[in-house]
Amino acid sequence: MADDPAYSDDMPATGTFDATFRARFAELVRLRRDVRRFRPDPVPEEILREALNLAHLAPSVGFSQPWRFVRVEDVARRERVAASFRRANAAALAATAPQDRALYARLKLEGIREAPVQMAVFCDETTQTGRRLGARTMPETRAFSTVCAIHTLWLALRAHGVGMGWVSILEPQVVARVCDAPEGWRFIAWLCIGWPEEPHAQTPELERLGWERRLKLDDLVHKL
Amino acid sequence: MADDPAYSDDMPATGTFDATFRARFAELVRLRRDVRRFRPDPVPEEILREALNLAHLAPSVGFSQPWRFVRVEDVARRERVAASFRRANAAALAATAPQDRALYARLKLEGIREAPVQMAVFCDETTQTGRRLGARTMPETRAFSTVCAIHTLWLALRAHGVGMGWVSILEPQVVARVCDAPEGWRFIAWLCIGWPEEPHAQTPELERLGWERRLKLDDLVHKL
Repeated sequence: MADDPAYSDDMPATGTFDATFRARFAELVRLRRDVRRFRPDPVPEEILREALNLAHLAPSVGFSQPWRFVRVEDVARRERVAASFRRANAAALAATAPQDRALYARLKLEGIREAPVQMAVFCDETTQTGRRLGARTMPETRAFSTVCAIHTLWLALRAHGVGMGWVSILEPQVVARVCDAPEGWRFIAWLCIGWPEEPHAQTPELERLGWERRLKLDDLVHKL
Repeated sequence: MADDPAYSDDMPATGTFDATFRARFAELVRLRRDVRRFRPDPVPEEILREALNLAHLAPSVGFSQPWRFVRVEDVARRERVAASFRRANAAALAATAPQDRALYARLKLEGIREAPVQMAVFCDETTQTGRRLGARTMPETRAFSTVCAIHTLWLALRAHGVGMGWVSILEPQVVARVCDAPEGWRFIAWLCIGWPEEPHAQTPELERLGWERRLKLDDLVHKL
């Protein structure tokens, strides 16, 4: 790990970023998509490693670093997760308003079968790392820290052209059992990772397919 | 907003990122800190606007965009938040193990008085945007989406040299009242934003001061 540039503590760093970098960073954010269609070819381990190294530098409450990653390669376990998706998605379809059901049924919402890399992310709610600092009135900040790591991973993979999809239409308890998660690990996300079938678009698929539109930022920012 | 480069839908984008960009992005992640010491001079509105524009492009479950930002400039309201911190922090100190208390008491854990920009972030748990897609078995993914927006904001500000601190040692109900938050808005974070007093260091302050060490990534990644 010492020779990983993302990780070297004595790497020279200017600490400043110019407008050119910021424009490219904005493009990275703008061209990150939730990917559901993957090519089957493998993702190099070096890319995964580099992205996980960066994810591990995410902010965490009290420096608790509560993220736990479980890569699932076992086919039978993957199939149990796929089955959990099918159950949860059938229930979601049934609970969707009648006028929305036809569109919902056409949406592709996961790539559990296709993506070469499948990874569950948990939050260790029992961790003593960081000695609970900052998490007494808001213990949910441990899960939030884990989300920051996932989001870092997403951007880091995208910078390599690798796509990621976050599947939430799952039964958390089932996934925890599939992953042999210890008591006290909270299931946060199931991630599908691989090369996307098509280039990352500029707008979310749910926007392109007419499911929802982007809100106006001005409607979401208030002043007191 | 049409002339904001982060937002134009027809902006030309190559969609690919090279090793030079990735090295700089890694540096951005590595040099992002939770800032607690701020200079009093104001942050230009254009920078805040640009960073919020990017935050608004964060992933959200079912494209629900549940993030709600409340900038608090009113001095009396800020003081009520500072008082909430003092109460929560006194309780946290008392609950800290005796051998850790002296160090805990020396830590500076927020910049509520100093930072020129103070902002609460809420998650609208009642939003119908996205029609609940993806959030039926895991409604907490709405809060997680809000966290992705906060993390994007953090990185975007850091790319301008602006520091941010996330304060979680607060009473969520008190902050919600201070912000006149509607029923159904869940308090996620209090953000202190401003120019940092010192350059962003390469390691978290809690690590430098001996509160906690960085875990080994290999201990956090499992394979099945």
